[in-house]
Amino acid sequence: MTEAVQTEAVHTERVDFRVRPDRYKHWRLSTDGPVATLTMDVDEQGGLVPGYELKLNSYDLGVDIELYDAVQRLRFEHPEVRTVIITSGKPKIFSAGANIRMLAASPHGWKVNFCKFTNETRNGIEDATAHSGQTYLAAVNGTASGGGYELALACEHIMLVDDRSSAVSLPELPLLGVLPGTGGLTRVSDKRHVRRDLADYFSTKSEGVGGKKAVQWRLVDEAVPRPRWDETVAERAAELAGRSSRPENASGVELTPLTKTADDDAIRYDHVEARLDRDAGRVDISVKGPHNDPPADIAGATAQGAAFWPLAVTRELDDLILDLRTNETELGTWVFRTEGDPALVLAHDDLLLNNKGDWFANEVLQYLKRTLRRLDVTSRSLIAAIEPGSCFAGSLLELALAADRSYQLAGTFAEQDPDAAPATVTIGPINLGPLPMGNGLSRLQTRFSGDDAAVAELIKRAGEPLPAEPAEQLGLVTFAPDDLDWDAEIRIVLEERASFSPDALTGMEASYRFAGPETLETKIFGRLSAWQNWIFYRPNASGPDGALRRFGTGQRADFDRRRV
Amino acid sequence: MTEAVQTEAVHTERVDFRVRPDRYKHWRLSTDGPVATLTMDVDEQGGLVPGYELKLNSYDLGVDIELYDAVQRLRFEHPEVRTVIITSGKPKIFSAGANIRMLAASPHGWKVNFCKFTNETRNGIEDATAHSGQTYLAAVNGTASGGGYELALACEHIMLVDDRSSAVSLPELPLLGVLPGTGGLTRVSDKRHVRRDLADYFSTKSEGVGGKKAVQWRLVDEAVPRPRWDETVAERAAELAGRSSRPENASGVELTPLTKTADDDAIRYDHVEARLDRDAGRVDISVKGPHNDPPADIAGATAQGAAFWPLAVTRELDDLILDLRTNETELGTWVFRTEGDPALVLAHDDLLLNNKGDWFANEVLQYLKRTLRRLDVTSRSLIAAIEPGSCFAGSLLELALAADRSYQLAGTFAEQDPDAAPATVTIGPINLGPLPMGNGLSRLQTRFSGDDAAVAELIKRAGEPLPAEPAEQLGLVTFAPDDLDWDAEIRIVLEERASFSPDALTGMEASYRFAGPETLETKIFGRLSAWQNWIFYRPNASGPDGALRRFGTGQRADFDRRRV
Repeated sequence: MTEAVQTEAVHTERVDFRVRPDRYKHWRLSTDGPVATLTMDVDEQGGLVPGYELKLNSYDLGVDIELYDAVQRLRFEHPEVRTVIITSGKPKIFSAGANIRMLAASPHGWKVNFCKFTNETRNGIEDATAHSGQTYLAAVNGTASGGGYELALACEHIMLVDDRSSAVSLPELPLLGVLPGTGGLTRVSDKRHVRRDLADYFSTKSEGVGGKKAVQWRLVDEAVPRPRWDETVAERAAELAGRSSRPENASGVELTPLTKTADDDAIRYDHVEARLDRDAGRVDISVKGPHNDPPADIAGATAQGAAFWPLAVTRELDDLILDLRTNETELGTWVFRTEGDPALVLAHDDLLLNNKGDWFANEVLQYLKRTLRRLDVTSRSLIAAIEPGSCFAGSLLELALAADRSYQLAGTFAEQDPDAAPATVTIGPINLGPLPMGNGLSRLQTRFSGDDAAVAELIKRAGEPLPAEPAEQLGLVTFAPDDLDWDAEIRIVLEERASFSPDALTGMEASYRFAGPETLETKIFGRLSAWQNWIFYRPNASGPDGALRRFGTGQRADFDRRRV
Repeated sequence: MTEAVQTEAVHTERVDFRVRPDRYKHWRLSTDGPVATLTMDVDEQGGLVPGYELKLNSYDLGVDIELYDAVQRLRFEHPEVRTVIITSGKPKIFSAGANIRMLAASPHGWKVNFCKFTNETRNGIEDATAHSGQTYLAAVNGTASGGGYELALACEHIMLVDDRSSAVSLPELPLLGVLPGTGGLTRVSDKRHVRRDLADYFSTKSEGVGGKKAVQWRLVDEAVPRPRWDETVAERAAELAGRSSRPENASGVELTPLTKTADDDAIRYDHVEARLDRDAGRVDISVKGPHNDPPADIAGATAQGAAFWPLAVTRELDDLILDLRTNETELGTWVFRTEGDPALVLAHDDLLLNNKGDWFANEVLQYLKRTLRRLDVTSRSLIAAIEPGSCFAGSLLELALAADRSYQLAGTFAEQDPDAAPATVTIGPINLGPLPMGNGLSRLQTRFSGDDAAVAELIKRAGEPLPAEPAEQLGLVTFAPDDLDWDAEIRIVLEERASFSPDALTGMEASYRFAGPETLETKIFGRLSAWQNWIFYRPNASGPDGALRRFGTGQRADFDRRRV
């Protein structure tokens, strides 16, 4: 309890995820034609909360918020950039990883949330490499430890300076008694295919591995002597740029500041509103569909820029998810509603899908995909309430498909608006593949995993606005109560949800959301994160005599030696 | 601490996994030609440790040890059995699952270990169905809750009595604040393909789902009214038996009592010996190869029965793993050595592989596979020490491949025996597929995941006794120190291992042992178990005000509502 109380006192300020390059404290972003350089130069005194110094390019959530912003802006604001070099502005050190004092002082939930966000950012780096023709190159110009090496692991190509002192390492296990928290083990084994026994050796050796051995073991792609460093990095960056499909002569789309107002009861954007019910432990999230037809062509959409509805609503959802996840941990259930004309949502989707070859349309789609994936790994119960006047169609239908349960009103609310058109849901082409979950399948495929006939049936009904009864019968929504039962059913699910163990809900939801195949991403969020959560929580790490708390005190950790 | 101290006092007796049907307290095993019936009729007063009553066919480790024994014996002693009906001997109740008072009173490690063993037994049931032509049929003749339903989920076909009161349920989340601990969530989603939102509803509804809805939702395969129950069960059992490839007129092989002696320092069997070093936290396990040529044919092997070396050594290893895992939790590192003639090991392997169509050869192979998988999910550091006189060839090479690291002596021990033949390792055909890990790949494939060229190179060298240098170069062993370095290297790895956080080691080893694809089995042991471990450990479940501890007291749990 001491730990929790103490730390709650520390994290009193609301974390804000909105930053911009001219205000970065920890990174420098520069571009030179097709090559951008992201230089990590962490301000030791610039920690998000007081109590630790960010020495040796170690990082906290604030540093990672800037990195996330840079990765996003490079995709939207810099269509000309084809290679992104991540390197360090400090001598002899690339990055020491997550700040240990910050971790040791943080409560369990903060650590887990921090790891989730850093994981998402690193997955985003891989996503830019795979889907945007922006390839990340780690120019590891000094020692990269722990999270520092994990950042390099998220890059497509890793260059390590070969100077007898620089090495890559994962010292978490030997020094801190925890696991690397940002996908390190999974990427070492499943991305870089380091042999398991060498990986074992590497991950128990706090000083790490450098030089030719690091190359031989596949930990890095090349080791380059310092005299040839700059020229080789430039060469490699140019080579990677040469493989890209980024457009020639396109102009970027500026990610202008979000319009956001927040008070104790609500968070409001242009298209998204969240009402916070602290007594009930719930957030009611309402998403507005577009008011107008989409632009005639993708050039028109690009001209609208950040105001283009699909981009605008995605940015708002993204910011809201991060805000609630970090700042409102006691609001355990999120209820999604939508409002608007389903046809206009589908028309906007179509514009994107008909221009998938266009860089901007592609970026918007990929961003929507990533934002929905953020929802998939969010440890909150997600409920969709599908009512008259809603627009759960195409891209917005994904919110209902991402939900743990969905309720669609059969008929109308007799007292409120008996003449309203009944609520419908509509499958669009965007639900059939372009927005895969982390497991590589669409939410529809995952929902009907092992039941291909059901999916085939649904594909036949694509484009058709489905009222509650057929939607329930087709399995597209969970329940279809009528006006008489609606309030009671919704009340029951929300009260039940609030009464259950939050931990057990997290574990159940994480299990049921990802049926079917596993990928690097689901392994990181499922297997690895679950182990990490457990280890973080154990006294051997976080107890007063645990390794994480004793690090740097000169005292060894005092372990309960029983293997579990 | 109170919990641990209190419970250590309870589990003072060493758990013994050796049982036999005539001594079962909780199960009745009967056979009638091709159909066996396993009737669960738990002795309320027959708990493994004092302090709880096993009411309503709830179970503890002792009940599951008998189930495991029965499943094993059915495969070896009953080649004529083609369908195994699992049913209950109690009126109106199939099984209430794991005993809650037992769980609430047990320390964390005990709970985790208990779940691991019950998982292995249920995987074994599926393995018998898939690979032995012994299909399991769950005749759920009353309510099946929690682990009771999970037992049914492990069966190929689930029949539920349709009597308005019987239901299947997973009440762990709503009642106990934990997850179903024996693969329930994974089997519901990935085996039975229950839609995720229905699965969510089902797993939050403590009273469960019965009748036609249970069939519609795929939770069971059929709901049968009580008047037609017996005849329908018999019909279905006969149908399933009709599909089997079990032999006609074969005689079983009796699993005779193991020769085992144990004192505080050692556990000894005919072919396996374990020396326990409590100060160092280590077990030295030595496995003896066969002394003689294998029998001329498989009939000869069957005649040897339980004395046939591959079966005998597998049974001993299996018992040892279970014994050490349960009773010696502080011995965190297991060092494997072998002793004997590699050619004789390979000759025994060949006899099995050349007779894969024979039921007995198949059973021995499948059992060896399962035992090695038990090793893969064992939370102990596994080290192989490959020295002169050893026989790490074929099936015994799997021990080195299952190890986290392997050390092979280059040359000989000059002082001990300078004229000895240097140690070799030999790949046999058994290493190339017949003993897949839980991920569906051989240990060699998993080791070289993403490096097909290395595997191709190794296949070329199959049958060749490889000394240390080529073995290291081919990546078959981790390190190949010579006489001068051997003692220091072995000492360092053992001391290091003993100094690290046991929890972090468990998480790292679980991650690195399973590169590549995921299956139902790896999902259960990786993703699901890791979540379960975490949830079990949290105060919301196991704290004094947690749901698991408060169950049955009339008081509601007091949850920390922050979502993590």
